[in-house]
Amino acid sequence: MRWQFIARIIGILLVFLGVSMVAPLLVSLHYHDFAFESFIRSIGITMVTGLILIILSKKQSSDDYINQKEGMATVALAWTAIGLFGALPFYFGPEFTNFTDAFFESVSGFTTTGSSVMTNIEGATKSLLFWRSFIQWLGGMGIIVLSLAILPFLGVGGIQLYKAEVPSPVPDKLTPRLSDSAKILWVVYAVFTLVEIIFLLGGGMSLFEATCHAFTTMPTGGFSPKNASIAHYNSAYFDYVITIFMVLAGINFTLHYQMLRGKTLAFWEDSECRFFLGLTLGLTLVMTWDIYGPVYTSLKEAFRFASFQVASILTTTGFATADYEKFPGLSQVILFFCMFIGASAGSTGGGIKCARIIACFKYCYRELFKIIHPRSINHVKINNMVIPDELLRSIMGFIALYIGLFVLSSLILAGMGVDMMTAFGAVAACIGNIGPGFGTVGPTENFYHLPMLGKWLLAWCMLLGRLEIYTIIILFVPEFWRK
Amino acid sequence: MRWQFIARIIGILLVFLGVSMVAPLLVSLHYHDFAFESFIRSIGITMVTGLILIILSKKQSSDDYINQKEGMATVALAWTAIGLFGALPFYFGPEFTNFTDAFFESVSGFTTTGSSVMTNIEGATKSLLFWRSFIQWLGGMGIIVLSLAILPFLGVGGIQLYKAEVPSPVPDKLTPRLSDSAKILWVVYAVFTLVEIIFLLGGGMSLFEATCHAFTTMPTGGFSPKNASIAHYNSAYFDYVITIFMVLAGINFTLHYQMLRGKTLAFWEDSECRFFLGLTLGLTLVMTWDIYGPVYTSLKEAFRFASFQVASILTTTGFATADYEKFPGLSQVILFFCMFIGASAGSTGGGIKCARIIACFKYCYRELFKIIHPRSINHVKINNMVIPDELLRSIMGFIALYIGLFVLSSLILAGMGVDMMTAFGAVAACIGNIGPGFGTVGPTENFYHLPMLGKWLLAWCMLLGRLEIYTIIILFVPEFWRK
Repeated sequence: MRWQFIARIIGILLVFLGVSMVAPLLVSLHYHDFAFESFIRSIGITMVTGLILIILSKKQSSDDYINQKEGMATVALAWTAIGLFGALPFYFGPEFTNFTDAFFESVSGFTTTGSSVMTNIEGATKSLLFWRSFIQWLGGMGIIVLSLAILPFLGVGGIQLYKAEVPSPVPDKLTPRLSDSAKILWVVYAVFTLVEIIFLLGGGMSLFEATCHAFTTMPTGGFSPKNASIAHYNSAYFDYVITIFMVLAGINFTLHYQMLRGKTLAFWEDSECRFFLGLTLGLTLVMTWDIYGPVYTSLKEAFRFASFQVASILTTTGFATADYEKFPGLSQVILFFCMFIGASAGSTGGGIKCARIIACFKYCYRELFKIIHPRSINHVKINNMVIPDELLRSIMGFIALYIGLFVLSSLILAGMGVDMMTAFGAVAACIGNIGPGFGTVGPTENFYHLPMLGKWLLAWCMLLGRLEIYTIIILFVPEFWRK
Repeated sequence: MRWQFIARIIGILLVFLGVSMVAPLLVSLHYHDFAFESFIRSIGITMVTGLILIILSKKQSSDDYINQKEGMATVALAWTAIGLFGALPFYFGPEFTNFTDAFFESVSGFTTTGSSVMTNIEGATKSLLFWRSFIQWLGGMGIIVLSLAILPFLGVGGIQLYKAEVPSPVPDKLTPRLSDSAKILWVVYAVFTLVEIIFLLGGGMSLFEATCHAFTTMPTGGFSPKNASIAHYNSAYFDYVITIFMVLAGINFTLHYQMLRGKTLAFWEDSECRFFLGLTLGLTLVMTWDIYGPVYTSLKEAFRFASFQVASILTTTGFATADYEKFPGLSQVILFFCMFIGASAGSTGGGIKCARIIACFKYCYRELFKIIHPRSINHVKINNMVIPDELLRSIMGFIALYIGLFVLSSLILAGMGVDMMTAFGAVAACIGNIGPGFGTVGPTENFYHLPMLGKWLLAWCMLLGRLEIYTIIILFVPEFWRK
C-alpha cells in the first residue's frame, strides 16, 4: 500500500473541494447572508489540508499506475475525507450545534442520500442551502465516474455487466485522469440539470429554488430548501416535472447518451431499463388503485401522488409530496421494498439496483430449471449477453451482503434504543441512499432525534451503500492487508 | 406423470390419517365431550376417500419406482390433501364457522407452524385440542422423513449437505416404504416426546396438558391448549423445561441419534449445531441485557423470558410466555430476524435454517476473497467437507426465493387491507412455520381477524416454507410439465 500515493489523490480532491466551496461563497455574497465567514474558514482549512497532503506526498511519475488494493483504499478514504471536510460549512454555521450532525448532513449530501438532521430548513442561510444541494450535485458526478470507470476497474459489485455499453472503452489501468467516458456522461448530466432548471423556472419557481431542486434531482439526492420538500408548492406541474426528471436520473446514463446520439430505441432495447420503467409504471398504477378513495378523492390526484412517491423512492431520490406513512398498508409495503430495489446500474440512484434484481430472478429460475433437467447447462443471459458465472456469483454475494448489513445495522441501531420500524426504515433509507424512511424518520420527519452514535452508524451505511459495499467491507478483511 | 400412482399414495396416506383420528376419538370418549360425532364423520369421510383412491388407482408392481417429478407432485399434493382432510374435525366442531378457518388451523398444525385462528382455545372440547396438538406431532414425523429421505432424493433445497451424516445410507430410489433412517429418527423423536411429558408431569402439569405440550414442542409446532400459551402457568420450571426441549427439537435429529449412540461430542463437532446453539445463547444474553430494567426488574426473570422467546422463535416453535411486542426495539428486531434464520437442517424447525445461513456467510466471504485474489480457487467447506458449487448455488437460490416469496406474499396480504407490520409479521411467521408474528398477529393475538383470502394465502405460505419452497414452486414452472 503506497500511502503517499493515496494521500496525494485525496490532497488533490480536497483542493477541488475547497475550490467548489467558492460557489456557495458567491451565493452568500449575493444574498448578503452571515454565512460568508464560515465558508471562508472552510475553504481555508480544506485547501490548506489538501495542499499539505500534496506537498508531503512524494510526486509519482505518470507511469506509476494505482493498483487495485490502493484503488479500493483510495475510494473509501476519499469519500470519507470529502464527507469530513464538506461538513465544515455546516459545522461553522449556527444551524448545527455539533460535528456529528454536520458530518451526517455532509455525507448524506455527497452520497446523494438526502436524509437530513435539519429541523428548520427554511431558517438556514441561502448559501448553506445552496451548499447542501450543490454537494449532492457534486456527489452525483462522483457516482458517475465511480460506477462507470472506477468500480469496474476495481472488479467490484457486478456493474461490469454494462461495461460493453459504456460509450468509450474503459481503460485497463485507471489513471488519475478521469476516463473520457465519464466526461461525456458528465455533459449529459449537466445538460439534464440545466433543462430541469428551465422547466422549473417555467413553472414559476425562483431561480434559487429551481437550481437547488435540479441539483438534487439529477443525482437522485432529494435535499430540498423547503421544510415540506416538494409538497411545499402543492403544484401538479412541479410534481410531474420532478417525477419525470427523477425517472430520467434513475436510468443508466449511457442510455441517455445513446438516445442523444440518435439511437431512439435505446431505452427499449435495454432489459434493465424496460424493467425499471415497467416497475415504476406498474407500481404507480397499483398504488393509484390503493390510495384512490382512502386518501385521495380524485383519480387524477391519486395518480399524481402515487407516481411521485414511487419515482422518488424507487430512484432513491427521496423528495416528498405526501406522508406515505398515512397511506394504506399496500402502498407502504410497496415503498418499503422499493427502498431495496433501487434504480438502474450506471444511474445516480442507489439500492441493490434493477440489474442485480433481474440477474437474481434469472439465477433462481435457472436453479428451478436445474432441478427439472439436472444435466442441462444453462447460461443466464441479459440483453442477449451471457453473464459469466463469476459475475452472477458476485451479484448474489452483493445482494446477500446488502441484506446482511441491513440486518446487522438494524440490530445495532435498535440496540441504541430506536424502535423497530424506525430502525428498519432508517437503515434501509441510508444503505439505499434514499432519504426518508419509516417510523419516526418518515417523509415529514427528520433524523435529528436519533442518538449520536446512530448518526455515525447511518453515515457509515450511506457510504457502504454508495460505494457498492464491497469497496468498504473489503478493507475489514484481514487478507486484504496481507502482502 | 402417472396420476394413478400419485393417487394411490395419497389414498394410503388418507387411510393412515383416518386411523390416526381414532386417537382423538378415544380422548372424546374418555372426557365424554360432544366432539364424538364430528370425529366419526371425519374418520368416515377420510377413510372412504382414501379407499376409493386406492381402489380406483391401478396397483403398481413393486419394481415400479416413483420418479423425481412424480415425487414432487406427490409431496405437494399429499400435504395439501392431508391439510384438507385433517381440517374436517375442526370444520364439524362448533368452534369453527367456516372451512377456511378449519383449513388454516389444520395446515398450521401439519406444517408445525402454530398460527391459530381460534379465539377461545380453552372453550374448545378436549378432544379437538388433542387433535390440534396431535396433528403437529404427526407433522413433525412427516418433516423428519421429508428432510432426511424424500427431499434429498428429489434433489431439493440443499439439505443434501447433511446426507453423509444420516445414520443409514439414503436409498438411491425412493420406495413407498419409508427409509430405515427415518424410522430410527422417529424413535428418537418419540423418546424425546415421552421424556418431555414426564418432565412436565413432574412439575405438576396434568397428563392431558403435558401430552399436548410435548406433542407440540418436539415438532417445533407451538399450539397450546391454553389461551395464554405457556404464559398461563407462569412457572420458571415449565419455562426452562420447554426452552430446553425447544432447543433440542431445533437440532439436527441425526446428531441426537449420534449422541444417544455414545458420540458425546456430536453437537460440538457439527458446525451448524455450534452456530445454532451459539446464536441461541448469544441472542439470549443480548435480549436479557435489553429487557432487564425496562421490562423485568430481576436479572433472573429477564434471562428466563429472553431464553424462552429466543428459543421459541429461533426454533420456529412459537410458544409464548411474554408479549414481545412490548419489548424494547432491539429485542423485537432480534426476534424478527430470528423468524428468517430458523433452526437446524434435519430438525423439525422451519425458516431458512442455520446450515444455509452459514453457507451464505462463507459464500460472501469467498466473494470478498476473490476480489483480493481474483485467480484463486476457493472451496467453501462446512464440517471439513467441501460444498460443491452446484449445492452452494442451490442454497443461494433458495434464500433468494425465500425472500422473494416473503416480498410477494407481504404485498398480496397488504393488498387485502392488512397493515404493513402485520403483513410482514404474518407472512414471515407462516413461511418460517413459526406461529405468532408482529403487528396484529403478535404472541397475545391470533390470525382470526385476517381476511378470508389472506388465510388461504398464509396457509399456502406455510406449505411453501415446510416443503422447502422448490417442491411447490417447481409445479408452476411450465418446463416441469413438458414431456
